[in-house]
Amino acid sequence: MKHLFENHDLQTERCGQFIDITDDVLTAVSTSEVENGTVVVYSPHTTCAVVINEPESGFMDDFCELLDELAPTGRYYRHDDLAIRTEGIEEETADYPNGHSHLRAALLSSTSQAIPIVAGRPMLGRWQKIFFCELDRARARKVFIQVSGD
Amino acid sequence: MKHLFENHDLQTERCGQFIDITDDVLTAVSTSEVENGTVVVYSPHTTCAVVINEPESGFMDDFCELLDELAPTGRYYRHDDLAIRTEGIEEETADYPNGHSHLRAALLSSTSQAIPIVAGRPMLGRWQKIFFCELDRARARKVFIQVSGD
Amino acid sequence: MKHLFENHDLQTERCGQFIDITDDVLTAVSTSEVENGTVVVYSPHTTCAVVINEPESGFMDDFCELLDELAPTGRYYRHDDLAIRTEGIEEETADYPNGHSHLRAALLSSTSQAIPIVAGRPMLGRWQKIFFCELDRARARKVFIQVSGD
Repeated sequence: MKHLFENHDLQTERCGQFIDITDDVLTAVSTSEVENGTVVVYSPHTTCAVVINEPESGFMDDFCELLDELAPTGRYYRHDDLAIRTEGIEEETADYPNGHSHLRAALLSSTSQAIPIVAGRPMLGRWQKIFFCELDRARARKVFIQVSGD
Repeated sequence: MKHLFENHDLQTERCGQFIDITDDVLTAVSTSEVENGTVVVYSPHTTCAVVINEPESGFMDDFCELLDELAPTGRYYRHDDLAIRTEGIEEETADYPNGHSHLRAALLSSTSQAIPIVAGRPMLGRWQKIFFCELDRARARKVFIQVSGD
Repeated sequence: MKHLFENHDLQTERCGQFIDITDDVLTAVSTSEVENGTVVVYSPHTTCAVVINEPESGFMDDFCELLDELAPTGRYYRHDDLAIRTEGIEEETADYPNGHSHLRAALLSSTSQAIPIVAGRPMLGRWQKIFFCELDRARARKVFIQVSGD
């Protein structure tokens, strides 16, 4: 059994940004020389998601708008209320309230995606691209790509 | 390590249809002769989802209704606005606006499901069935079943 | 290839409870002696979810509130209407309507989470914890942890 693990560093630019990482995944699968197996794309962050969908700008903007409706910025969130919060407080917590980002990430609950590999290629459909989605502000991020198989 | 990959062709009938593919998955696991491992059920489409839940018609209708509320048909979506859209346009795009379908698929973000296999059987709970969910119109679809393990 | 499968029994206390099972997962990975591979955390229930996010009480309460808005208790659900329902009816079905729980589970569609293992450790991010989420009432539950790799 072969295993290849890669970390890719990303710098996101804004809330709602979709970064197409499909080529990174294809290259990792190719490098791994795995013919049959699985590739897992994993976000180690609590305010991001890995989403597979179509690379069409209008859809991405529609989706940001939907998430804005479901978990708006500017609403009261206990997570952002430092008068009651006791856990996970850091120096910059007060400056960057992100209760909405945690809700959006939890609603999607797609910390990772698993894609079958056959004959050395991930079995993505014709319109499918793999996106790293920033649901918080511009930040330094990581995405993990793990290829396993024979 | 053993690997079995199967494509199953489906013909869906309507938006919101749940197709129970549990038996296909059980048969694939049995055919693979994998005793310990994982089965990944994967949709190669951008307007479908793979969902595990209870096979109860009322729930399925409730769920369609909820998705209709969250991403209604008939609302304005940039994805369907051919006056501004430049990407992924085909001959039939104008005839079949599906911005709502992309939003529903992205909100669920369940392109795949991974289920542990122990003693040659997927460890589904008593009430769990595996569904391929059509979130667009009646279409020819594929679902991939991949079994890996020993 | 090594495989370790564990069932952990849980007793939940209320709808919306998040149970942190990260230590159970870390122990299972350690016991398995898998150095490179994947751990799958799987819920065999149709009204629960496995979610990875930050262990901050305010966020958990915010998230419960969001799910309450999206699929409220007390609304009419076909799943709870025993005048029309014919499937999956048991003795206690009438006493515990849970149409809202099925909708919440389906919306999250996170029956499982897959996490890469490198150098014998799951690659969780700094703020990530793994939660078993009860979306129904207080119940006896199971969560499956499966470690596979070399």
